[in-house]
Amino acid sequence: MNVLIVFAHPDPRSLNAALRDAAVAELEAQGHTVRVSDLYAMNWKTTVDHADFPSLGEGERLKVAAASGAAFAADALTDDVKAEQEKLLWADTLILQFPLWWFTMPAILKGWVDRVYAYGLAYGVGEHSDRRWGDRYGEGRFAGKRAMLVVTTGGWAEHYAPRGINGPIDDLLFPINHGILHYPGYDVLPPFVAYRVDRFDEAGFTRAAEGLRERMRTLETTAPIPFRRQNGGDYAIPSLELRPELEAPGASGFALHRT
Amino acid sequence: MNVLIVFAHPDPRSLNAALRDAAVAELEAQGHTVRVSDLYAMNWKTTVDHADFPSLGEGERLKVAAASGAAFAADALTDDVKAEQEKLLWADTLILQFPLWWFTMPAILKGWVDRVYAYGLAYGVGEHSDRRWGDRYGEGRFAGKRAMLVVTTGGWAEHYAPRGINGPIDDLLFPINHGILHYPGYDVLPPFVAYRVDRFDEAGFTRAAEGLRERMRTLETTAPIPFRRQNGGDYAIPSLELRPELEAPGASGFALHRT
Repeated sequence: MNVLIVFAHPDPRSLNAALRDAAVAELEAQGHTVRVSDLYAMNWKTTVDHADFPSLGEGERLKVAAASGAAFAADALTDDVKAEQEKLLWADTLILQFPLWWFTMPAILKGWVDRVYAYGLAYGVGEHSDRRWGDRYGEGRFAGKRAMLVVTTGGWAEHYAPRGINGPIDDLLFPINHGILHYPGYDVLPPFVAYRVDRFDEAGFTRAAEGLRERMRTLETTAPIPFRRQNGGDYAIPSLELRPELEAPGASGFALHRT
Repeated sequence: MNVLIVFAHPDPRSLNAALRDAAVAELEAQGHTVRVSDLYAMNWKTTVDHADFPSLGEGERLKVAAASGAAFAADALTDDVKAEQEKLLWADTLILQFPLWWFTMPAILKGWVDRVYAYGLAYGVGEHSDRRWGDRYGEGRFAGKRAMLVVTTGGWAEHYAPRGINGPIDDLLFPINHGILHYPGYDVLPPFVAYRVDRFDEAGFTRAAEGLRERMRTLETTAPIPFRRQNGGDYAIPSLELRPELEAPGASGFALHRT
């Protein structure tokens, strides 16, 4: 299996980097082929701007979705973006690994999503009409592939528990798991999350690394989060609201979108 | 009143820029003083890296929270970051304005948060012990100030409705409203959200601009989102889990953290 790890930590001697190395070693021991996009090491350009669309005229107004769609269709995106898109098409499984900063990914990784996820590749795919609103949420270019988050946080696990003050970790990660990974078609595995990593001693690191290795060994067999498919009948067309009869009693918020 | 607008759209002729100008004009007409941080125009450095901490030794390992805390305490952060922190301390109200890209803010704005929100300013404030876990979520350096999001999206309002396929907009914005704004103490106003902006005609823009102007006129009187305060007695110490007896029947997810 081909595995792409997109990695976003600024220090090569970090705990995150050590966890990444443990994951890569385990994946290779399992016979998989691994590529790593180490965004800081690549000096990844983080912001979407006019320079991303060389075919756009000098003084032309930048409408991002339109410019992205035109450039993707004409194979006119910049080389750094095309290289990442090629890796996404190559990979059977995508892993995004990052420290949780302000309850989501660091800017450099968000900038990877903003730039690599072109219109025509990750969104704007399929028919958009009164009968259908695209191939997304379980369909799309990456359908049949798997994806997974590997996240570290300095905070306590209890603070991210179902009643924890930060909000439940699965809800905090929903905009990524559902909105960035399930959207273009991935089957999304439950995340691997390591808590209180700032206080890790040797034993803490060993435990976390072993947990991550176990997840790498079971990448192909772990059941994905059961997100509903947009075009599977659960949502009304065209409003794409979940049919009321499918609401579990008492369910609300993001939980509605899991079967 | 002093108002800071942090603005994140790459094109000065965008609908977002026109909405920002409408907001600024209305605020000034109301007698407020307005400053705008136009991140793209400022060529804002987006990624946290070693260069953010000039006092860190060349080959020294970058532990972000520790480096941030040491540099903030020593007044040794970079000038661009210090200028933004000064604006935050000056402003009575903070507005973050951005197009919703992949269900959250564009990378350049996330990079503003990652870099400007130093340890000692926005987190790591107050006593951290078995009895208390900091001044945050309603307390902190920005307590007594107000904050608000102004967001545009190409998607349909229905897709962001309570049962909409993207997830409810209030839940999608929770990691920002609660985790980035309420965390360091802001009272957070309900967001202003404009949907389907890619299809706006003249009338659509006029309606959105008038809605935004109305929100600017009522900045001081609009009731904040009633997020619970961490240290107000609703959460158990030290786990910071919401006391079970405070759960409304059927409530779950982020909704628990509003009274």
